[in-house]
Amino acid sequence: MPGKPPPPLLYADTDRSADALYFGGVSVPDAFVAFESRGRKYAVVSALEFGRIRKASKFDRVLPLERYLKQARERWPGRRPGPADVIRLLAREFRQSSFTVPEDFPAGLYQQLRRHGVRLEIATGALFPARELKTAAEAAAIREGNRCSARGFAAAERILRASKISGRRLLHQGRPLTSEALRFAIEVACLEAGAVSDHTIVAGGDQACDPHERGSGLLRPHELIIIDIFPRVTATGYYGDMTRTYLRGRASDSQRALVAAVRDGQRAALKMIRTGVNGRDVHEAVVGLFSSRGYETRHTSKGSVGFFHGTGHGLGLAVHEPPRMGGVIDCILKRDSVVTVEPGLYYPGLGGCRIEDVVQVTDARPRMLSRHPYAWEF
Amino acid sequence: MPGKPPPPLLYADTDRSADALYFGGVSVPDAFVAFESRGRKYAVVSALEFGRIRKASKFDRVLPLERYLKQARERWPGRRPGPADVIRLLAREFRQSSFTVPEDFPAGLYQQLRRHGVRLEIATGALFPARELKTAAEAAAIREGNRCSARGFAAAERILRASKISGRRLLHQGRPLTSEALRFAIEVACLEAGAVSDHTIVAGGDQACDPHERGSGLLRPHELIIIDIFPRVTATGYYGDMTRTYLRGRASDSQRALVAAVRDGQRAALKMIRTGVNGRDVHEAVVGLFSSRGYETRHTSKGSVGFFHGTGHGLGLAVHEPPRMGGVIDCILKRDSVVTVEPGLYYPGLGGCRIEDVVQVTDARPRMLSRHPYAWEF
Repeated sequence: MPGKPPPPLLYADTDRSADALYFGGVSVPDAFVAFESRGRKYAVVSALEFGRIRKASKFDRVLPLERYLKQARERWPGRRPGPADVIRLLAREFRQSSFTVPEDFPAGLYQQLRRHGVRLEIATGALFPARELKTAAEAAAIREGNRCSARGFAAAERILRASKISGRRLLHQGRPLTSEALRFAIEVACLEAGAVSDHTIVAGGDQACDPHERGSGLLRPHELIIIDIFPRVTATGYYGDMTRTYLRGRASDSQRALVAAVRDGQRAALKMIRTGVNGRDVHEAVVGLFSSRGYETRHTSKGSVGFFHGTGHGLGLAVHEPPRMGGVIDCILKRDSVVTVEPGLYYPGLGGCRIEDVVQVTDARPRMLSRHPYAWEF
Repeated sequence: MPGKPPPPLLYADTDRSADALYFGGVSVPDAFVAFESRGRKYAVVSALEFGRIRKASKFDRVLPLERYLKQARERWPGRRPGPADVIRLLAREFRQSSFTVPEDFPAGLYQQLRRHGVRLEIATGALFPARELKTAAEAAAIREGNRCSARGFAAAERILRASKISGRRLLHQGRPLTSEALRFAIEVACLEAGAVSDHTIVAGGDQACDPHERGSGLLRPHELIIIDIFPRVTATGYYGDMTRTYLRGRASDSQRALVAAVRDGQRAALKMIRTGVNGRDVHEAVVGLFSSRGYETRHTSKGSVGFFHGTGHGLGLAVHEPPRMGGVIDCILKRDSVVTVEPGLYYPGLGGCRIEDVVQVTDARPRMLSRHPYAWEF
């Protein structure tokens, strides 16, 4: 029977490490040492952070970094003390000879600590497996993120509806409407709702066929426009993640068929998602539905067309986290995990469509954590 | 004589890794493999990113991730292929048996690659030392970031000037002025200017004495308000970083003396900064000036008062990067490096003041990369 793994050790800032944010429950902009020992959580931070973190975090005790740097200078004079020295001193003080570190623990620090006899086990998979299963409070925080996304869609829709079609351009308040202008309105709406939306995608026409292209320049009438908004709620650090596809003007029959297929693909996935289901089967069902309507996926030397990303991914303190629902790996959905459901189809010439919502897995129908209408043709 | 270090290998997304952004010159939201071999730069990305990165990056060649995942599944059937497998295949294909990785390379991947015989050296210090020295284009990008900061200050000043003093509150458009409202106006101004300002600090009174406290709730008249804006320019990824301190109402003599000391401290630092100077001496000069005016630094169990952070830090694709000008370590300033100059004083009861600008180091007077007035009492 394997023993209990040693307690966690982290060295990261909370912008880069969702684990660090999950562990301490407080945003810390510079990398800091955090660890557990005998069931208690500790952070080591500088005077710059001390008061704030003592007040706002879940740490049982906050230790002053300066004390350990001073000890390190006394013990190992003549060299600049760093996090490895601080951790060695802590390991001794807390009689904690081994720790579990996350896969993304910095290799430089890992190597130094091992050389100095601190035993480190690298977690296989998640450092905190519980992060995948969302509590009611976490689900509410994600729902709040999606409320911010929805505010962004509402702002975009107001502008699209108010835009006038003028030849191959859309005019809003007399000026040609661009991806940048629409993105600005969306990001302001998110800020106003309490979230920061970075990398917002507003991509029309063939630009939208590159699913990570953010979009730039003129938005055209009669073309599909993908808007993907994944804001991070400032107060909690949790993300929302929703996508809608719009068209200002008149859609062609093939554009309508494309959008209907994507929405039906999403419905099919939503029907299947529940505890114990394999995310790969969900993905394959969407692929099958697309295929039955003639939407095939092809990879060419110039790129891919069709449905060439996963059906969904976990969402929480990171915008992409486990589980992944895709075609490559088996992934049994766990009760209380939260996933996006975002089928998409992309064909240069015709355009791209993606529709994305967020659900929490239950033993029955999934719990919707996002809400916004699907009207798309204005 | 030591040999040339092996070429760089990275596995990171560009939000988390400034090195990855520097190397490829393109924003990539998910972790990807990038490396150099025989002087040419390569990236391995999925179909999702392929087209966009081939168009927009500095990579000499972009390789399709799917090809290597397929090879890995054929070669090592029955297990899920990951980045370690991809890198092993690349090392063989490019006959590149060793790489240099950055200190923050993921420990899990480091360990796997070593086990499979890929030789990895961990860079001591910077992976790309040239990142510290900014080209003219990079200096211009940082200047652009500071232009966005300045737009934020202008927005904040408009609101502070327009606010009415009503007892212990400031009223703006009939509503009590809060840190949140001022931050919103600043962040909108930054978005409009083309940058995302996250973690913007708007902290008044004793809140400002915790230098990383973002600030919340009512802003008071006759109290010092620290505003620190460090936006990231969306088009380039480079940061601005500026701080001003304001007061709406009437400053006391001791508040005026505090602000004058901080500004004089900044002037003293700016006079000293040039190629070859020790950043520690710059910092000590500021400490000495503060001390000569009676502003001492003390560390207590409840936190620190006085000047308890560094005088400045490098700025570029990361908001904090080398060099650091502080009291702990020697740091010889190099020509073309870019640093913030940001003395501050913090005394609960009296309040906090920090003034921050950005300069590029030259052989003579430093080149200012930030510009905004210092008027502070409205």
